[in-house]
Amino acid sequence: MPTASDKIPVAQLREFITACFIKLGLPPDDAATCGRLMAEAEAQGSDGHGAIRVIPYARRIRAGGMNVTPNIRVVKDKAAMALIDGDNGMGHLVMKRATEIAIDKAKQCGVAWVGSVNSNHAGPASLYPRMALSHGMIGLYFAVGNANHLPPWGGLDMLLSTNPIACAIPAHEEPPIVLDMATTVAAYGKVKAKAARGEAMPVGWMIDRSGQPLTDPKRAGEGFLLPIGGYKGYGLALVIGILAGTVNGAAMGSETIDFNADDVTPTNTGQAICVIDPDAFGDGHEFKRKVDELIREMRGSARMPGVERIWLPGEQSHEKRLRNEREGIALPPALLASLEVFAREIGVAHL
Amino acid sequence: MPTASDKIPVAQLREFITACFIKLGLPPDDAATCGRLMAEAEAQGSDGHGAIRVIPYARRIRAGGMNVTPNIRVVKDKAAMALIDGDNGMGHLVMKRATEIAIDKAKQCGVAWVGSVNSNHAGPASLYPRMALSHGMIGLYFAVGNANHLPPWGGLDMLLSTNPIACAIPAHEEPPIVLDMATTVAAYGKVKAKAARGEAMPVGWMIDRSGQPLTDPKRAGEGFLLPIGGYKGYGLALVIGILAGTVNGAAMGSETIDFNADDVTPTNTGQAICVIDPDAFGDGHEFKRKVDELIREMRGSARMPGVERIWLPGEQSHEKRLRNEREGIALPPALLASLEVFAREIGVAHL
Repeated sequence: MPTASDKIPVAQLREFITACFIKLGLPPDDAATCGRLMAEAEAQGSDGHGAIRVIPYARRIRAGGMNVTPNIRVVKDKAAMALIDGDNGMGHLVMKRATEIAIDKAKQCGVAWVGSVNSNHAGPASLYPRMALSHGMIGLYFAVGNANHLPPWGGLDMLLSTNPIACAIPAHEEPPIVLDMATTVAAYGKVKAKAARGEAMPVGWMIDRSGQPLTDPKRAGEGFLLPIGGYKGYGLALVIGILAGTVNGAAMGSETIDFNADDVTPTNTGQAICVIDPDAFGDGHEFKRKVDELIREMRGSARMPGVERIWLPGEQSHEKRLRNEREGIALPPALLASLEVFAREIGVAHL
Repeated sequence: MPTASDKIPVAQLREFITACFIKLGLPPDDAATCGRLMAEAEAQGSDGHGAIRVIPYARRIRAGGMNVTPNIRVVKDKAAMALIDGDNGMGHLVMKRATEIAIDKAKQCGVAWVGSVNSNHAGPASLYPRMALSHGMIGLYFAVGNANHLPPWGGLDMLLSTNPIACAIPAHEEPPIVLDMATTVAAYGKVKAKAARGEAMPVGWMIDRSGQPLTDPKRAGEGFLLPIGGYKGYGLALVIGILAGTVNGAAMGSETIDFNADDVTPTNTGQAICVIDPDAFGDGHEFKRKVDELIREMRGSARMPGVERIWLPGEQSHEKRLRNEREGIALPPALLASLEVFAREIGVAHL
C-alpha cells in the first residue's frame, strides 16, 4: 500500500504525461492537452483511462498506428453540426476540438452536434460533455468502443463494443450530474480485477457460449459480457455505435479494430458530442436551480436498509476529483514501477 | 380466442378512434391525427398504447384534465431548436408538430432538437423518431413517463418514471432500426400480465423495500421495478427526464402527475425529439447502405443453442405492422367489449 507521502500531485502527473507525449513526437500544445485530460481522468477516478494508458498509447504511436502531427480539420459543416476528420491523431485532441466547436455552435443555434471520423480512443466518455458545464450547457456524448466484447442478443460473434453514453448536466449549488456508462453490466476491467483477487463474479456479469451464467473470471475468455437489460443494452450499444460511428463514416461492427491486440491499423474511431444550451429553452439560471432541487430530492429519498447514502451520477467522481486535487493521487505500485521503466527508456524524468 | 374473422382492419380502428375523439370535442383534423397515431401504435404491437388508451384518455378529457382545443405554439425558437407549448393538448398532437419542426430545421442545420412543455402522454416513444425515417433522417426521442415507478438507486421513494429513450435509423433495403425502451428491466404492464396468469416473475424484474427479489406479481405494490443495469438505469432515467422535462420547464421527479390516479391535474408532460440528417455528415444513401450491412452482420452472427433468429431492434414490430396491416388486428375480447360499451355511451358506431 502506498502511504500518503507516495501520493502524486495532479499537476505532476499532468506534466509527466505531457513530457512523455512531447518525447513521442507530439507538438507541445497537443502533448499538454493530452497530459491535462489524462490527468483529469485519473483524478476523477477513471483509472482505466488515466496513467495506465500512457504505455499502450506510446506503443501504438511507436508502431506507427497513430499520427503524432495530425491535420485535424472540419470536413462537413452546417449551422448546427460539423464532422471533424481526426487524421488518426490522439482522440483527446480530436474530441476537445469537436466539443469546442459544438459549444460555439450551440451558443448560436441552441443545440449543436459534432461527429468525428478517423479519431482514436479519447479516454473516459465524461471528459467531453463535462466541457459544456462551464458554459452552463448540457453535453451528451456517444462513442464507439475500441474492442468488441458483445455479441448481438442471442448471438456468439462479438460484433459490438460496450459503446458508452455520457451526459453532463450543470447544477447551481450542487455538483453537476455526470452520467458515464458503458452498455454492459460490468466493464471488462472489473472482470480482470475479480480474477486478480481470485473471487467469483456475480451472476449477471457474463454468460458462456450456451447462455449459462459464467461466474469464474478465469474463464472470461469463454464467454461474453452481458448488456444492461439484456436485449435493451444490445439495442443501445447498436444505436450508440451508429450515431457515433456509422453516421460519421467511422468504424462500426466488424470493422472495429481491437486496439489491445493491434497497434498498427488505424482504428477509424467515431465519436459524437451534442451540446444543448438550456438558455435557449428558458432561463438557464432557473434551469440550474431546478437541477439542484432534483438532486436534493433524489438524495433525500428514504433509503433501503443498509444504504447509507443515495448518490447522484458523477457525485462519487466529483468527490474523488476534489480529494485527489487536494491530496494527490495514489497510483498502484505496479503501474508506478512500469511507468518508471518507461520514463527511463524514453528519457523523461520519472514521476 | 378471437378467430381470423374477428380481426379489425387498421383503417377501421383508425376511424373508430377518430370518431371517438370528434365526439369528445377535438377538431376533426386533430381527432384524425390521434386516430392515425393510436391505430399505428396498435398495429406495431405497442398494445399498451393503442386501443386500450381510448377510454383513459376520454376519462381525462371529460374530467377537464386535458384541453381538446389547445393553442399549440412555438414559444422559443433558434436555428436548430424550438420549444413547443402544448397548451395541455393531447401529446400526440404536440409531438407530431414538434417532430415536423425538428425535421424542417434539421434539413437546414443538419441537426435539430425540439422540446415540449405542457404536453401529455403521446403513446409509444417510437412513433415520433419514426417520422424522420421517410426523410432519410435519424430520430432520437426522450420522454418523461406519466407515473413514477422507480426510486433513485438505494432509495424507497418513487421519484422517477421509467423514462423511455427511442431511436429510429433508416436503412436501404432492410427495415429501419427502431429502438424503443423504458429504463426498467420490465414494463409495469408485464407485471400485471404475470399476475393475471398467476405466474411468478423472474428474479431481476422487481425488488421489495428491503432490496430482496420480489417474484410474486400480486405483491407488486410492495416493491419497485428494477432499472436496467442497476444504478446505470437509474442514471439514465434521471438524465432522460432532465433532457425531456426539466430543460423544457416540464414536470420531473416529484412534480410528475400519476395519470392513472389523477384525471384532473394538468400533467405538464415534457418530451424531446432530436433529428439528425445523415446527408449533412456524408452521403445519405451510402449511410443507409452501411446500416443494411450492419443489420445483416448482426442477423448473420452464429447463435446460442436454442436461439432461432437474431432480431434487430424494431424488427419484430415491423413484422407485426406488416401482418396487422394485411390481416387486421385481433383485439382482446375484454377490450372490445369495454370499447363497445364506451361507443354506445358517447354515441359512436361500435368497432
